[in-house]
Amino acid sequence: MSNMSDILIFGAGGMVGQKLVNRIRTDGIAGDNGHTLTLHDIAFPASGQNIGRQVVGDITDAGQIRSLVAERPAIIFNLASIVSGEAEENFPKGWDINMFSMWHLLQAIRDEHLASSGSYSPRLVFTSSIAVFGGPYPDAIDDEFLAAPQTSYGAQKLTCETLLSDFSRKGYVDGISLRLPTICVRPGKPNKAASGFFSGIIREPLNGQTAILPVEDTVRHWHASPRSAAGFLTHAATLDTALLNNRRALNLPGLSCTVAEQIEALRDIAGQDAVSRIAYIPNPDIQKIVAGWPRNFNPERSLALGFRAENSFREIIETYIAEDFNKADGITM
Amino acid sequence: MSNMSDILIFGAGGMVGQKLVNRIRTDGIAGDNGHTLTLHDIAFPASGQNIGRQVVGDITDAGQIRSLVAERPAIIFNLASIVSGEAEENFPKGWDINMFSMWHLLQAIRDEHLASSGSYSPRLVFTSSIAVFGGPYPDAIDDEFLAAPQTSYGAQKLTCETLLSDFSRKGYVDGISLRLPTICVRPGKPNKAASGFFSGIIREPLNGQTAILPVEDTVRHWHASPRSAAGFLTHAATLDTALLNNRRALNLPGLSCTVAEQIEALRDIAGQDAVSRIAYIPNPDIQKIVAGWPRNFNPERSLALGFRAENSFREIIETYIAEDFNKADGITM
Repeated sequence: MSNMSDILIFGAGGMVGQKLVNRIRTDGIAGDNGHTLTLHDIAFPASGQNIGRQVVGDITDAGQIRSLVAERPAIIFNLASIVSGEAEENFPKGWDINMFSMWHLLQAIRDEHLASSGSYSPRLVFTSSIAVFGGPYPDAIDDEFLAAPQTSYGAQKLTCETLLSDFSRKGYVDGISLRLPTICVRPGKPNKAASGFFSGIIREPLNGQTAILPVEDTVRHWHASPRSAAGFLTHAATLDTALLNNRRALNLPGLSCTVAEQIEALRDIAGQDAVSRIAYIPNPDIQKIVAGWPRNFNPERSLALGFRAENSFREIIETYIAEDFNKADGITM
Repeated sequence: MSNMSDILIFGAGGMVGQKLVNRIRTDGIAGDNGHTLTLHDIAFPASGQNIGRQVVGDITDAGQIRSLVAERPAIIFNLASIVSGEAEENFPKGWDINMFSMWHLLQAIRDEHLASSGSYSPRLVFTSSIAVFGGPYPDAIDDEFLAAPQTSYGAQKLTCETLLSDFSRKGYVDGISLRLPTICVRPGKPNKAASGFFSGIIREPLNGQTAILPVEDTVRHWHASPRSAAGFLTHAATLDTALLNNRRALNLPGLSCTVAEQIEALRDIAGQDAVSRIAYIPNPDIQKIVAGWPRNFNPERSLALGFRAENSFREIIETYIAEDFNKADGITM
């Protein structure tokens, strides 16, 4: 009852969304390049990957979500979200965009499921986040560690995971939640995310600009490149979800390193001149937020399921240089 | 800005609600007996504890929730819920009653908080459940084990916990979620909960009636009495929530025992005649549900915070006999 070649992507105009679209264009999904794409977002970058039908709209528009789901795409990606900083500043907006849009999407899918006498149950890949976790942490977070979010963004992501899991258990949808590491190096301009400096201290120096480091260089964090993020998403699109054993939220592979190790990798690749462009200007607000973030994981399940990320921060920088350096991508999400 | 002596109880007409009202009437809260109670539910037992103002209404009526919260009670208990069996049978009703009523309650509280320039931030005690967990389990679930619900009821409780935690972190409310063990021995008649037999195999034989045991007697589960449940709630009403370190959902103390151990305790107290009234009639549906439930906990945090439950199943039966045996309580929730 579904159109097996159709893919619907919410949040397709964002940085990760554009990486995903590009990945599907070049590699397909599980070797299949015959997909028809519908891309939804509030805006799209002018220079972006515009290979599908673009639908401009607001993710909180339940009627529009419903009409797109009524086309019964076989695979739906939900990447639409405001970032942590904005969700913290604007509490109602955060819950509305980051949680209720998922509720409306799941309602629309359930209605199509029921209207199809149960034959329509699309794959839904949701971008959750390691922000679902809150300290104190063990040395490395394992697959059975509790989720205790300490930001509204994290609470909203956890709520979406819980909804998606229950709608999946009932058979209305076939969902999987991917707890993305912090994506680094983000191309384009800084966004409102408190994690922005992890990318900024690499991207700005490589582009001859000054970057502000607001935390001490002993801070340890969990990273994966935009290329890995796209790979996580396409891998999840055809994964056998029976292997998830009803635990549909996955901690993903990533790279754990300190800011000092990031800076050393930058020095190896671009020299002391680049490193000299990093200005340490302590910001107590950001330090407090970052102190609550996960530092390391032991993601046995996702590794066993075939998800892969980088093995060194040098590799992460090289990915940025190969994919995004000196590109006028116009992405400012 | 709040009326420090006022208490508002949603779900006050149910079994645990009535136990809570009775406990407040006899013992007060933290030694204070001067509280004014507002009791809300869809119905109240005729013989029940009617010591406060009774408000009959539907917990999904957001306007009524709002008008009760506008009175700015200092302490709010939210016990309103449909049971697991009904939430599984009626998916939209479960989410509506068990989750969206909490959303509307929190919205109403936040609005009062903002209208009071931030001075109103009531204590909100929420009855969550061990149904937030899903297997496979360790021998005993510790305080850092993940929540992975395998029923809609459990998913709804987990979502409410997540909402309550985030609204609390922002200071709009001062919440605590209590993951109640299975309450045993429930007085009155059986309800739709799949866990009903844990009480039935004690209650019915003591009352000279036949009880059906749908699972093998090797099944292990986690119990606390209605008296303990009332104690958990009043203890949580004045607990210093700063001690929760932003993890506001607590696994509570309870008693882990097998059905065989339950039956032996019944034999000790009431003899072989009572035990002979238990009929083992396997029910694969119930067996499958129960197989997914937690069996044992190591609730270090709640014990350190002063929560207490029974130490033997004999004690649980004695509590039932002391409080509820031969009472025409009329409770059929």
